[in-house]
Amino acid sequence: MALEERDFPGVAFQLLVPAGAVNDPEGLEGASTLLEGWLWKGAGELDARGLAQALDALGVRRSSGAGLEYTAFAASFLPEVLEEVFRLYALLLTRPRLPEEGFEAVRSVALQSLLSQEDQPARKLFSELRRRVFLSPHGRDPLGREEDLKRATPKALREDFGRRYTPRGAVLAVAGGVSWERLLGALEPLALWEGEEVLYPPPLLASPERFALRRPTAQVQIGLVYPDVGPEDPGFYAARLALEVLSGGMSSRLFTEVREKRGLVYAVSAFPAGVKGQGLLMAYAGTTRDRAKETLAVMLQEMERLAEGVTEEELARAKVGLRTALVMGDESIRTRASSMARDLYMLGRVRPLAEIEARVEGTTLAEVNAFLRAHPYRDPWVGLLGEVEDV
Amino acid sequence: MALEERDFPGVAFQLLVPAGAVNDPEGLEGASTLLEGWLWKGAGELDARGLAQALDALGVRRSSGAGLEYTAFAASFLPEVLEEVFRLYALLLTRPRLPEEGFEAVRSVALQSLLSQEDQPARKLFSELRRRVFLSPHGRDPLGREEDLKRATPKALREDFGRRYTPRGAVLAVAGGVSWERLLGALEPLALWEGEEVLYPPPLLASPERFALRRPTAQVQIGLVYPDVGPEDPGFYAARLALEVLSGGMSSRLFTEVREKRGLVYAVSAFPAGVKGQGLLMAYAGTTRDRAKETLAVMLQEMERLAEGVTEEELARAKVGLRTALVMGDESIRTRASSMARDLYMLGRVRPLAEIEARVEGTTLAEVNAFLRAHPYRDPWVGLLGEVEDV
Repeated sequence: MALEERDFPGVAFQLLVPAGAVNDPEGLEGASTLLEGWLWKGAGELDARGLAQALDALGVRRSSGAGLEYTAFAASFLPEVLEEVFRLYALLLTRPRLPEEGFEAVRSVALQSLLSQEDQPARKLFSELRRRVFLSPHGRDPLGREEDLKRATPKALREDFGRRYTPRGAVLAVAGGVSWERLLGALEPLALWEGEEVLYPPPLLASPERFALRRPTAQVQIGLVYPDVGPEDPGFYAARLALEVLSGGMSSRLFTEVREKRGLVYAVSAFPAGVKGQGLLMAYAGTTRDRAKETLAVMLQEMERLAEGVTEEELARAKVGLRTALVMGDESIRTRASSMARDLYMLGRVRPLAEIEARVEGTTLAEVNAFLRAHPYRDPWVGLLGEVEDV
Repeated sequence: MALEERDFPGVAFQLLVPAGAVNDPEGLEGASTLLEGWLWKGAGELDARGLAQALDALGVRRSSGAGLEYTAFAASFLPEVLEEVFRLYALLLTRPRLPEEGFEAVRSVALQSLLSQEDQPARKLFSELRRRVFLSPHGRDPLGREEDLKRATPKALREDFGRRYTPRGAVLAVAGGVSWERLLGALEPLALWEGEEVLYPPPLLASPERFALRRPTAQVQIGLVYPDVGPEDPGFYAARLALEVLSGGMSSRLFTEVREKRGLVYAVSAFPAGVKGQGLLMAYAGTTRDRAKETLAVMLQEMERLAEGVTEEELARAKVGLRTALVMGDESIRTRASSMARDLYMLGRVRPLAEIEARVEGTTLAEVNAFLRAHPYRDPWVGLLGEVEDV
């Protein structure tokens, strides 16, 4: 748990519960998604409608959803309702109704959500890429599988709830206008929450491969995945700065080479997408069929060229870019609560903003280039989706 | 122009230039989009690369794009680079190179962007809906039309630039850690910017109709459009509160009736989408083919039921919801600069947050219900996209 107190007339929290696709029960992929939906069907004295009305009456802006590694509950509200908000979330976690009669609507919504992915080509491609990148369950899609969603029973999910909705391994991050003392008081109803530790499988990579998914789409989607270092690695900040050189602004290499010079695409980007214990770098572009080959070639080349190093000028731009992003991102307590929670999950501690800034600032050109020589971005998983024959 | 000074180590601005799809030249739809892209190909002493590098070296986080009513340039950065940032944007506006050799790449990117819409069913549906809602050019898509993008010449666009990239009708909103005095100094290079007033056509609605676009998508997309009041209307806050009752939280009517009770969809929402001089309310849902009919029926019914009024309890929840959203949205200087600019464009003045809060708070149940009786949400434009026969 962590709090960052601020002089601000609002509070935001992010709660991570250790129930994600990676530890969904075998044969029940999507269980975390079903559970998260079912949870809102009532808790304690409140039915679904009562619960929704109670939170809306407090003005709580909230979102929640099951992801790959955990289920995240985010909420923001005015400080005066802090105690009542945590009382309701404690009810949700310790006394959910999980009522039989609400279950089919939850299953139906989950199936709709899975189906809607078929109409989102880029999302579909990266879901398929992940399946091929990991031998471990880290390749799963949090939306689950149709057959598993259809197979799920209220009984199996209630057992699963008891096993995975547990404070051991849960993470809570709070930012905004509230003191430690008051926060601790507000969290008292959560003292009733109990459970055992949940096991997480270790991530395990498959061998790189190339594949094409034929679909009748207008554009061809291109996705690349490279192994990378995570925030626990000494090379993390070097990698982060290299990524900024690659894809951080309009003068970044990918934007310049793929879009500006050649007009090959409307959108091209690279972004970190790792899991705990296994960093990953992904890259994306969408283009026309007749430009797909050239686009892919330029992307692969720019990734590989990183091993030759970046220039002093590029590094300076990357540093100022990251510093500005830190200052700007920092102003939102919601953003901050979210990255604090991610830090707690990944590293077991929150990195203060001053630490991140100092590490970015302190990383030298020699360090970045030594890192890039030692960790070349080569031999990725390559996926194409669209009217394509082969890779 | 407007400034909201804040004690914050960052500055954000939003600049609106009066070049949007509504005043794209006849036969040249997409001209604003082409111009915005072409603009970044160099200005004054800087070529495309030099310009991108100069802004990235200052750590400017920026985005820009042509929309329906104007082209928006947004930027955020640290206060110490304020003068240099405005010097570069002034260069862009007063001395763009618009170089022949960069033009084909710009056209290519615009065509890619238009093509990518074909793979986004919901976006495609609303683009088609807009075309049918308006008799005036407000039905255009800012991405333009393929034939027009292909027809555009550097000469025609340079003329268009001279006509529409003008300070008359442009809007600048700034928020963050900078004083009026300093801002005025930084804006001096913009004194060179000149031009005539740009004409905007008045919005003109067509008659409501229903249509279906057959596409081989997994889901059926449903879109509704209703005429509504804009921010200049005395009924605006009543309408805004009614929208919150309809679609503002988990206890909102649409979410409860369409998703929670019936599990018909994963996503359902209603949102304002008007233009200057003509408010619009739009509603969206995506569902399976066999549930499309029921989903549409429930949506139409909930919209029509608003005429019967909302309850005291619903209104109270709507007010606290909007108030919390105001506090939370307000924290970001980028969000604030953007809504200040929109206010300047729509109303000719910025509504202080305190005014919005007071108007929300002061709107009574009687006022909301009188508004809803007088402005029933009936007879919408209805569009479906997917494997459907008819509406």
